[in-house]
Amino acid sequence: MAKWVYNFGAGKADGSAQLRELLGGKGANLAEMASLGLPVPPGFTISTEVCTHYYANGRSYPTDLESQAEESLKAVEAQLGRGFGSTEKPLLVSVRSGARASMPGMMDTVLNLGLNDDTAAALARETNDERFAYDSFRRFIQMYSDVVLEVEHYNFEEILEEYKDIKDYNLDTEMTADDWKQIVKEYKARVKDVLGRDFPADPKEQLWGAISAVFGSWMNQRANTYRRLHGIPEEWGTAVTVQSMVFGNMGNDCSTGVCFSRNPSTGDNHFYGEFLVNAQGEDVVAGIRTPQPLTLAERENGGGELPSMEETQPEVFKELCAIREKLEGHYRDMQDMEFTVQQNRLWILQTRNGKRTAKAALKIACDLVREGVIDKREAIKRIDPAQLDQLLHPTLDPSAERDVVGRGLPASPGAASGQIVFTADEAEEWSKAGKKVVLVRNETSPEDIGGMHVAEGILTTRGGMTSHAAVVARGMGTPCVSGAGEIKVDGKNKVMLANGREFAEGDVITLDGTTGEVMSGEVATIKPELTGDFGELMGWVDEFRTLGVRANAETPLDAQTAVDFGAEGIGLSRTEHMFFDPERIVHMREMILARDPEARRAAIAKLLPYQREDFTALFRIMNGLPATIRLLDPPLNEFLPHTEEEMQDVADAAGVSLRALELRKAELDEANPMLGHRGCRLAVTYPEICEMQARAIFEAVVAVKKDGIKAIPEVMIPLVGTKAEMDDQAKIVHRIADAVKKESGEAFEYMVGTMIELPRACMVADEIAETAEFFSFGTNDLTQTTFGFSRDDAGTFIEEYLQRGLLPADPFITIDRDGVGGLVRMGAEKGKKTRPDLKMGICGEHGGDPESVRFCHEVGLTYVSCSPYRVPIARLAAAQAAIDEADAA
Amino acid sequence: MAKWVYNFGAGKADGSAQLRELLGGKGANLAEMASLGLPVPPGFTISTEVCTHYYANGRSYPTDLESQAEESLKAVEAQLGRGFGSTEKPLLVSVRSGARASMPGMMDTVLNLGLNDDTAAALARETNDERFAYDSFRRFIQMYSDVVLEVEHYNFEEILEEYKDIKDYNLDTEMTADDWKQIVKEYKARVKDVLGRDFPADPKEQLWGAISAVFGSWMNQRANTYRRLHGIPEEWGTAVTVQSMVFGNMGNDCSTGVCFSRNPSTGDNHFYGEFLVNAQGEDVVAGIRTPQPLTLAERENGGGELPSMEETQPEVFKELCAIREKLEGHYRDMQDMEFTVQQNRLWILQTRNGKRTAKAALKIACDLVREGVIDKREAIKRIDPAQLDQLLHPTLDPSAERDVVGRGLPASPGAASGQIVFTADEAEEWSKAGKKVVLVRNETSPEDIGGMHVAEGILTTRGGMTSHAAVVARGMGTPCVSGAGEIKVDGKNKVMLANGREFAEGDVITLDGTTGEVMSGEVATIKPELTGDFGELMGWVDEFRTLGVRANAETPLDAQTAVDFGAEGIGLSRTEHMFFDPERIVHMREMILARDPEARRAAIAKLLPYQREDFTALFRIMNGLPATIRLLDPPLNEFLPHTEEEMQDVADAAGVSLRALELRKAELDEANPMLGHRGCRLAVTYPEICEMQARAIFEAVVAVKKDGIKAIPEVMIPLVGTKAEMDDQAKIVHRIADAVKKESGEAFEYMVGTMIELPRACMVADEIAETAEFFSFGTNDLTQTTFGFSRDDAGTFIEEYLQRGLLPADPFITIDRDGVGGLVRMGAEKGKKTRPDLKMGICGEHGGDPESVRFCHEVGLTYVSCSPYRVPIARLAAAQAAIDEADAA
Repeated sequence: MAKWVYNFGAGKADGSAQLRELLGGKGANLAEMASLGLPVPPGFTISTEVCTHYYANGRSYPTDLESQAEESLKAVEAQLGRGFGSTEKPLLVSVRSGARASMPGMMDTVLNLGLNDDTAAALARETNDERFAYDSFRRFIQMYSDVVLEVEHYNFEEILEEYKDIKDYNLDTEMTADDWKQIVKEYKARVKDVLGRDFPADPKEQLWGAISAVFGSWMNQRANTYRRLHGIPEEWGTAVTVQSMVFGNMGNDCSTGVCFSRNPSTGDNHFYGEFLVNAQGEDVVAGIRTPQPLTLAERENGGGELPSMEETQPEVFKELCAIREKLEGHYRDMQDMEFTVQQNRLWILQTRNGKRTAKAALKIACDLVREGVIDKREAIKRIDPAQLDQLLHPTLDPSAERDVVGRGLPASPGAASGQIVFTADEAEEWSKAGKKVVLVRNETSPEDIGGMHVAEGILTTRGGMTSHAAVVARGMGTPCVSGAGEIKVDGKNKVMLANGREFAEGDVITLDGTTGEVMSGEVATIKPELTGDFGELMGWVDEFRTLGVRANAETPLDAQTAVDFGAEGIGLSRTEHMFFDPERIVHMREMILARDPEARRAAIAKLLPYQREDFTALFRIMNGLPATIRLLDPPLNEFLPHTEEEMQDVADAAGVSLRALELRKAELDEANPMLGHRGCRLAVTYPEICEMQARAIFEAVVAVKKDGIKAIPEVMIPLVGTKAEMDDQAKIVHRIADAVKKESGEAFEYMVGTMIELPRACMVADEIAETAEFFSFGTNDLTQTTFGFSRDDAGTFIEEYLQRGLLPADPFITIDRDGVGGLVRMGAEKGKKTRPDLKMGICGEHGGDPESVRFCHEVGLTYVSCSPYRVPIARLAAAQAAIDEADAA
Repeated sequence: MAKWVYNFGAGKADGSAQLRELLGGKGANLAEMASLGLPVPPGFTISTEVCTHYYANGRSYPTDLESQAEESLKAVEAQLGRGFGSTEKPLLVSVRSGARASMPGMMDTVLNLGLNDDTAAALARETNDERFAYDSFRRFIQMYSDVVLEVEHYNFEEILEEYKDIKDYNLDTEMTADDWKQIVKEYKARVKDVLGRDFPADPKEQLWGAISAVFGSWMNQRANTYRRLHGIPEEWGTAVTVQSMVFGNMGNDCSTGVCFSRNPSTGDNHFYGEFLVNAQGEDVVAGIRTPQPLTLAERENGGGELPSMEETQPEVFKELCAIREKLEGHYRDMQDMEFTVQQNRLWILQTRNGKRTAKAALKIACDLVREGVIDKREAIKRIDPAQLDQLLHPTLDPSAERDVVGRGLPASPGAASGQIVFTADEAEEWSKAGKKVVLVRNETSPEDIGGMHVAEGILTTRGGMTSHAAVVARGMGTPCVSGAGEIKVDGKNKVMLANGREFAEGDVITLDGTTGEVMSGEVATIKPELTGDFGELMGWVDEFRTLGVRANAETPLDAQTAVDFGAEGIGLSRTEHMFFDPERIVHMREMILARDPEARRAAIAKLLPYQREDFTALFRIMNGLPATIRLLDPPLNEFLPHTEEEMQDVADAAGVSLRALELRKAELDEANPMLGHRGCRLAVTYPEICEMQARAIFEAVVAVKKDGIKAIPEVMIPLVGTKAEMDDQAKIVHRIADAVKKESGEAFEYMVGTMIELPRACMVADEIAETAEFFSFGTNDLTQTTFGFSRDDAGTFIEEYLQRGLLPADPFITIDRDGVGGLVRMGAEKGKKTRPDLKMGICGEHGGDPESVRFCHEVGLTYVSCSPYRVPIARLAAAQAAIDEADAA
């Protein structure tokens, strides 16, 4: 005979956590707890196989289900000494769904089942609390009618509102026992009115009605949608768990609470929790009453006036302490437990791995390894890489008051305070004068780079998580709030309007780049402590990961930070950022204004010494680690000024008329600069640029070689779409390398490769790899072209897409596996086909996103490259991916 | 014993046209002509197998090659009664390369081989023309030295220039026989100087040197590059053809000429040609002397004063006539023949299918079918679809004088004259006043549409072949020259500068959209004659093609043109073009300025009647043919005005402040509008737009149904990148359809599908096809995103890419098979996997490009859709693809 029903309670269970597929998550966990001998309110689970049978057979049950369930119910009655439908000690039950995967709120639940006029009266007598009994009854009618009978909710609300109006009550708490009794009558009458039949009084009938409703809810609209969105197969089905109700609100020998086996904020190995006497679970969460601390230590440590459970109910507390030990030992992780004490009897309702701060997570994981409870692999898997970010930046003092005046996107984590400045130039001036500034702009552009570098924080009103400001700020580790659309910036009059208040230049504000909050005045911050635990864990991480981690870095400061955070090289050095320095941009502009190759070559030659210095500095810091250097990428007009005044200055400096400069600027203006004359297209038409940059790189290699430093430059050609482009540029680089070798008499190694950042490049990656010695997937641009989403513009609709579930995640943050990821996979496979040892990395923002790092590991890339501050996150995510892969194998 | 050498001449040959792989193109054709009994100067071909042997064996020859070649040479000597190296009647030969595929100019050739001091003297005696003999000799030394001995050309130029300086000559024609004799001496001395040995006097040595040089040239840099670019395998190798020289310049019984078996301009079945007495082939081409007509009829028909060959050399002429018959009969196509008469003896040097005008091509093909020479399939294959375009538009009278002042891209074919106007509004005003205008702008935008419609022609200084102006103009069949960068337009001062001349508003210019020329004044044009031949051929075409052909059309005029040209439906109706009418754009702007969905819905509701009318008109014209209607696609700010004055007008009309309007405009401004808030993203965030358009479509369906017309709308959701977007929009369309059905009580059919125009859509086409009932590949946008090329901006570099061979063709004109095409193929395959009967079309500009149409046939699309004027071209290309496929099978 098939087994359809699984019992749990009284220190044993038919099932266990292993039977999740059969019992659902909830049923399996209850069985597990019962098996451990914990005092779980007894009950039984009808398996998912019944659900499958139910749908396969026109919504009917296996013939022997009823008899099995009856028997289980009897066992529950026996354990508790109560009777289902008893008019002395009535047993009440809850009926809940439980699928293999959690589907919070998607399916139906019925509580307090088993109540009717007789059992309600019995409950009132037993508890000596009529109000409790009839409030429970009316709640049951309401819930059961809604879920099982399909009598809509508004019917009951209407009755209650009307009743309260008549009685002139404002709150439900004003309702007396008699009031609730009257409501119960009216509720039942309304059900009869709507359905034409009585509300079922027979507990058995109630029970089977609820079970059918829960199975039925597996196929409701909400559940179907949820499954579709989360990829949960319909065939899994749900289980139904019927469990006895326990009450923490039957008197002063009752209570209910929540506890943690270790402190979830600090990770300290101390029991921690709080509870309320004579209360329901909801009351703890609702925060209306002040809860009492669980332990004496807590109370003494600032837990308030109220006595602890350790003091008031030492026996129960002792029992709870034993359970804490047992559960942590069993689950080998910090537990978050819910309990209820009914008439001095302790019941454990739920246990789960507790949520914790990043700091606590790190400490708990390391402590557990030291305690010998888990191994390093387990510890690594326990840390959420995204959470790690909290540890790497200053954070706001949680006890400090905050005067929040606006919100934007949490674009670059960390907190910072400073005086408002509205231009990058002012930022530099004020900073030189020793002031701390926050740069506030509608948006930033590459020419703001100097100001951005000196600012404590950056606030923009436009642009998303991958806008210029956001990307640059993350790269520098500077806190940034971007796209704060509700804040208005009037740069002309130097005023910022936020939440109806005006802020002038020099006013102090504070940004929290981790939450996106903008605050008035200075808010105290706490410095990050990269404690021993952090260093230890990162050491373990490197033992397991196979994916390399590099950093995107241009300045010596970035490069040093990257190395300090454990980067194994530079995966992307954007050379254009090096041209915005005032003494350099002059020559850049000269180059742009040149009308023939000779004049262009002359202008660009002046940039050679600067570039050589840049690379020399970079190579010195990298000290033998590889560095991928991307040749000039942005369209040329990014180097021209915007205001008329600046234009006049440039024209004067260049010795051309303002009109001529304007014409040239107009000529360079593009409708869609992202798809315009940029990337390698620049150096295809102006080969002088590639020549100069290649020469600067190789001369720098020779320069550091003299000091015994081996530089390994990987020259990266940007935005290649065809093999012909790759060939054209590689030829120039090789020619210059040969020339520098000959001139210097020095030999050196280098590679020439490309950024794969166009769909076409992925399609013909096999051809490109004939010439390219390495690939670096530029997934920022690849996401833009694959989706047809401009990073700068997608903010206007992407938020709505996310809210409405039209996109599972922002594809600029987490790689889109099917589309962009599919192209990366194709590019990687094709590349390897041509060149089996092809070195492949990723250098988009995705390189620092844990889910994307996992994808890169799966696809078999050689390394990821990310902002220096995200290097530890990428290292951890890479280790997790490797461990999971090994576990799966 | 292997056969390495193949003879030809004297009415027979060892080879034929079938042996192209062995003999190369040139060798095979000579063999074929010889076999036909034509008087071909005798010679022999050393096969490509020798080339293979040569490279496989360290550049050495098969042992028996020399003896085979010697024998063949003897046969040639015997036929001509001349001797190689003879000091009486010396035989001179040419040595040429000839690969299986034509590689013009890539490999080396040596002429006049066999000359030395003795044979030159003999030649001088025999021809009684010393100057001829020694000029030939010095040319031979120069050519042989360059090709075989690798003595660089400048050596000989230097000598000749110096000599002429001393003699105070300007032209080579001033050189006398003695002068050339002296030059020969100096040339030989220089060779000895450079090489340290004498110039080879032995004709045999000369011959083998030349043969080796030709084989060697198969692997030279130029040839390697050419092969790589054209995908010619290295293994094919080249053949070497050694052929006796004949001379048309040995006296007045000599001549040389070119003739066509039918008239290449008109296609008339008349012998046609011209020749020069006592001249070399080059002289005919050079055009220094006026050639004489071949036939009497020609001369009488305006061929000038000079006597025809029919009159002066009736015997030779008769022979030539017989050859004309023979060759046309053999090749079954109009032949272009080169001949030389040496001392009254006729030699045929070359024959090939003659180039011809579109008109002639059509006439000849149809005539040949009527004459029973070829069948319809053959006739269809003979017409170049691209050439067909010439027949569909007015063309410039070739006899009219042209004053060309500038050049741009041939963006939309046909010729037109008119008065210059600089704005679309003026175009409309002037046109209403009965004037013919040419709209001259830097670029056009959708709001210029009214002016573009009334203009005779359109000239822009910016933008490529697929710029807004180009696309719209082609759609309307209006001649257009785009991207004429050398012309400057000063719209403010209403002045156009071209070639240093100023043109004001009202000045007349003429555009040739077929060549890209811009001319001052009016140039006479010739109307297209869609003669019987055209109609007949198009009828044949439809018998063979399997690919459907639709048209892109919005206006009733476009739709009517499309139907007239044989379109089987509308493949793309862009609804946004319908919103630019002044009385409509007001509501569009109202919609854009609306701040909440209600106001937006109210504004857009006002557009409903207009849209319904648009679709009603369209459905009436289509009269049962399907029509794909694309919902609103462009970003909203395309509907806002650009000038401050217009902005003020709009603000006044909308009752908002100019400042508010400016803010909204700034809000809508995008850094990269192509990748911004457009396509279905608009209607995802503003569902009212989709609702209104769907309603307009379905109400129009109901409206025409009342008149007995069955409309089959295919509602197309633009720019879908995810299944979620497709679902979201399809749901709206279905809901509205249901509503209209209910309201009207009428049933009707429709489809909902999508434009596949993003790389991501191709990657997840299987998912999208779960909802989409049809695909239309939007290859314009797909090319933009796949390459990362903006159509509006790529002009700045794409031209250089084409010139330098970095791109084989403009990917916006001919589909890029590997990249964009690869994505289309993937999308089509994935779509079919989900929905085997998926209807799939293409609606980018590629739909009218013959090579791209072939691609669409191969990929298995259902139809292509193109500009109405390109429908016949697409039909022809589709038939050719089907015939070729059947032939290959």
